[in-house]
Amino acid sequence: MAGPGRADRPKVVALGGGHGLHVMLSALVQLPVEITAVVTVADDGGSSGRLRREVPGIVPPGDLRMALTALAEPDATGTLWSSTFQHRFRGDGALAGHPVGNLVLVGLSQVLGDPVAALDAAGAIMGVRGRVLPMSAQPLDIVADVAGLDEDPMAIRRIRGQVAVASTVGQVRSVALDPVDAAACPEALKAIQEADLLTLGPGSWFTSVLPHLMLPDLAAAIIGSRAHRLVVLNLAAQMGETEGFSPEQHLEVLSDHAPELRIDSVLADRARVELPQRLASAAQRLGAQLDLHDIAIAGTARHHPAALATSLATVLGRASRSGRHR
Amino acid sequence: MAGPGRADRPKVVALGGGHGLHVMLSALVQLPVEITAVVTVADDGGSSGRLRREVPGIVPPGDLRMALTALAEPDATGTLWSSTFQHRFRGDGALAGHPVGNLVLVGLSQVLGDPVAALDAAGAIMGVRGRVLPMSAQPLDIVADVAGLDEDPMAIRRIRGQVAVASTVGQVRSVALDPVDAAACPEALKAIQEADLLTLGPGSWFTSVLPHLMLPDLAAAIIGSRAHRLVVLNLAAQMGETEGFSPEQHLEVLSDHAPELRIDSVLADRARVELPQRLASAAQRLGAQLDLHDIAIAGTARHHPAALATSLATVLGRASRSGRHR
Repeated sequence: MAGPGRADRPKVVALGGGHGLHVMLSALVQLPVEITAVVTVADDGGSSGRLRREVPGIVPPGDLRMALTALAEPDATGTLWSSTFQHRFRGDGALAGHPVGNLVLVGLSQVLGDPVAALDAAGAIMGVRGRVLPMSAQPLDIVADVAGLDEDPMAIRRIRGQVAVASTVGQVRSVALDPVDAAACPEALKAIQEADLLTLGPGSWFTSVLPHLMLPDLAAAIIGSRAHRLVVLNLAAQMGETEGFSPEQHLEVLSDHAPELRIDSVLADRARVELPQRLASAAQRLGAQLDLHDIAIAGTARHHPAALATSLATVLGRASRSGRHR
Repeated sequence: MAGPGRADRPKVVALGGGHGLHVMLSALVQLPVEITAVVTVADDGGSSGRLRREVPGIVPPGDLRMALTALAEPDATGTLWSSTFQHRFRGDGALAGHPVGNLVLVGLSQVLGDPVAALDAAGAIMGVRGRVLPMSAQPLDIVADVAGLDEDPMAIRRIRGQVAVASTVGQVRSVALDPVDAAACPEALKAIQEADLLTLGPGSWFTSVLPHLMLPDLAAAIIGSRAHRLVVLNLAAQMGETEGFSPEQHLEVLSDHAPELRIDSVLADRARVELPQRLASAAQRLGAQLDLHDIAIAGTARHHPAALATSLATVLGRASRSGRHR
């Protein structure tokens, strides 16, 4: 492959969870960069939620599994294990709905006593490029203050759990983690410290993107990093948690939760931004330049990995030219 | 490693299931031989039984998983994956009691549509020496004619399922498979055809050893093979299915089920044979020489893998000297 040698490659840390992180990683593997994914561990729904209830103390594996498969080597072995990790048991029995990879990650974690070692071992069999890390080695819960659930429009209720927050019919005002002071994964802190580019989003804003800013030492590392900080906005407001949110409101929410956070670049899909000047101003208030590119798969609310990769290459070029990051 | 090159190594096919096959494979990996395990697929108990009920059509994975782990490379990666495959979920939830490896084997089989390809893929991640094959690519059931379950001691009842047969309080008279004419795994037939040594036992006699002789084309391959055929007897009669059986009765049962079967060697633990002359005569009636060696772990009813390996080396030497096998 052309491009810089392995040691000289820019280091990118992608922060997020779920499908948003998966598409970001699918774009990053197309570039000559060193990738570390730092993944939310607050999922309490689906297979991950069932596993958390059945195996107390485990980190929910679902988002971690998806990140691994996005980074799998595209050869026969990588493809087989990636497909098998994603394969869900069917039917209506005790296993139905569990992806094989979730069960393997829980088993490896129990044998090794360490979710990071488990992820490295699972990554090795599918030839994962880069590394997938949990934001914390302990499972977390999201709690949110939500308005609009009562007759009194000013009344705020506290909602607990990722599923409840992501699907609330109210308006999420703020989120926090429980416990509030969990330790971040040390390997994730180190990766952020050494990164050239940090990416936040796309993804469920309150439940996949913001949690990284709510963990004190992880937030401090993100805010203090010498890396170029890029926010990639969603293509559509999410039913429930960000229904009715404009693109600039997404940025304001970041600022509300982490007032010291400075951003260098904001990337959004051109067709989804109704008021570009307003978004550019909101970006500027955070210190960021706005890039409006065509990064959606036409006619869908999904990002196009190859188009996203092209945009990321542009941002990487800017980051290295700026000079302050090396 | 000293010894013959890979291509010249004697080819050994170990027939069986469960713990008996596991100890045989643990002995064989200590010798410079090419190993193929051909494993029973009639288990309907424990995790395998639950998986058969939940995922119709799958080959029960438990005995296959145990065979894989016996052949795993003893380095860090092989040991990790072998331990993880054997690791059972604890607690009292939906997953409790399932070994991780059983779930992986079922998942791989569904993704690949073929249990043999699934076993090869699982074997690759733990560096399995040799190959583990199911005796048939379809799950089977054991049915047994059992006496002593009624007041009339001559009355025979038909009992269905490995667990029921293995734990019956009656006397098993004969076993059969359902369906009676399932196809044997083609790769297993080929391995038997090319083998220098075939081993039967130790193991649950009616439910792990005899099934290979009840599958028509597998029995024909075993009976017609040019290989040296070795029977390794158990250290103790098994509660239930072979309670009260003498060593020579174990041989007679083989003969009853496969009258054309000729045996070349019978191996038994010296201390467990009360009437050596009688066992030698029973062996001779099948064409076999009897070896009485010290192959048990002192004070237990378990075989000592290293001692068993030494005895197997003796039998292999005899097989190659006899000349008729090459």
